[in-house]
Amino acid sequence: METPEKVTIVLVGAGNLATHLGKALVRAGYDILQVYSRTEDSARNLAGMLDAGYTTSAGRLVNDASLYIVSLKDSVVPELLPEITAGRERALFVHTSGSTPMDIWEGKAGRYGVLYPLQTFSKQRDVSFAEMPILLEASDQECYSVLETLAKKLSEKVLPATSEQRKYIHLSAVFACNFVNRMYAIGEKILREHGLPFELLLPLIDETARKVHELPPRLAQTGPAVRYDRNIIERHLELLSDHPGLREMYEQISKNIYNS
Amino acid sequence: METPEKVTIVLVGAGNLATHLGKALVRAGYDILQVYSRTEDSARNLAGMLDAGYTTSAGRLVNDASLYIVSLKDSVVPELLPEITAGRERALFVHTSGSTPMDIWEGKAGRYGVLYPLQTFSKQRDVSFAEMPILLEASDQECYSVLETLAKKLSEKVLPATSEQRKYIHLSAVFACNFVNRMYAIGEKILREHGLPFELLLPLIDETARKVHELPPRLAQTGPAVRYDRNIIERHLELLSDHPGLREMYEQISKNIYNS
Repeated sequence: METPEKVTIVLVGAGNLATHLGKALVRAGYDILQVYSRTEDSARNLAGMLDAGYTTSAGRLVNDASLYIVSLKDSVVPELLPEITAGRERALFVHTSGSTPMDIWEGKAGRYGVLYPLQTFSKQRDVSFAEMPILLEASDQECYSVLETLAKKLSEKVLPATSEQRKYIHLSAVFACNFVNRMYAIGEKILREHGLPFELLLPLIDETARKVHELPPRLAQTGPAVRYDRNIIERHLELLSDHPGLREMYEQISKNIYNS
Repeated sequence: METPEKVTIVLVGAGNLATHLGKALVRAGYDILQVYSRTEDSARNLAGMLDAGYTTSAGRLVNDASLYIVSLKDSVVPELLPEITAGRERALFVHTSGSTPMDIWEGKAGRYGVLYPLQTFSKQRDVSFAEMPILLEASDQECYSVLETLAKKLSEKVLPATSEQRKYIHLSAVFACNFVNRMYAIGEKILREHGLPFELLLPLIDETARKVHELPPRLAQTGPAVRYDRNIIERHLELLSDHPGLREMYEQISKNIYNS
């Protein structure tokens, strides 16, 4: 593999996204100098995997990295930014959040951007970056090029997205991934309560996902709500009478389907 | 291929399930004698595909089939049953509905059962039966054996399920398939309103489905609701202010996630 330009990286954060991104960057030949996490175990573990140093204090971040990738829970980002950027005028700073605008860096750093991998990351599962959309935004063309070169070593699908676009992409991903997974979990719960294995649903889950590669989801819709089969809907609501929250959710999503 | 025992079939219904089941039965070597649908076009089209006769009148069903597979919208089944069964004492009758109990046949037929393929069927898309769970129930062991022999020519996953179990399986499938597809459609709608292509979400959709082959959905959950990232949740609710229905749905599913 061709050696990447001398991009040296500090990972600020050691959560699921930081972990998978860090591993992908190391596989692509990049040097991670240091990992920061408030939690010592997390910092040490990820640093170990990436052959990097670590710190639990933002005041002890190394100064000589060329790229600082901030991948923290969104709510803690604002308070940490000044410490992360201070005295590092020549570095490039990015965050990896779908819903945080790029302008959080304004006035704090001169060279900055966003690198948003559109994917779901769990600690327990390796995930391929090759086909994952990586959405980029940068303060200027030079910074964009640096990020693009790096992102293209990870994925074939590197695209520009403005902060405005990115927040809607993130919102759509909450429905198409997070809420979808919750629907799987509710299916599992219903089966488990009746002594039935979740695995029964896997072929259906797979086909439901495969279908929307060929048909727009609007046209792929099946089930009692789209047929407006009131008999079945009523019977299902009755089956959920011990779960008022699920009953309400069933009614609401069904209405949303047949009104659409 | 070994010739199946002399099972000859009438398909009562020409919807998505009847169409795919009929095609799979013909591929497995079975003879479909006749297709019934109230809609002449549907009856003729499916009969053409299956090299079968057709009728739009339940009074004109042929008498000499050994198996009558009823695959109609659940609400129209009760009124048609007497006409379907009358004078056909030696035939085996099954329906294909998740939510209809087997006992709808009681007093109307002597040999009966249920053959429920757990899958989502769209007209526009071929689907493999090979790994699809087919859930069976029958009035007696002899009928079960006939159905089992037939179902095993279509799929490797043939299982018994009582009417009680089947209704919960169907309910869980509504969440894990129909409601999941609606979440995809909402993702598509949000992207489309901002000029962004749905294809962006496909790698995420695929990974979300693949994940639950390895992790129980409870453990695979990611996103702002499970982290209880109130900042992002509030921002998303704001983005949905023009869509009160979706806003309410977002809140409800998020609560369901973080209370679980």
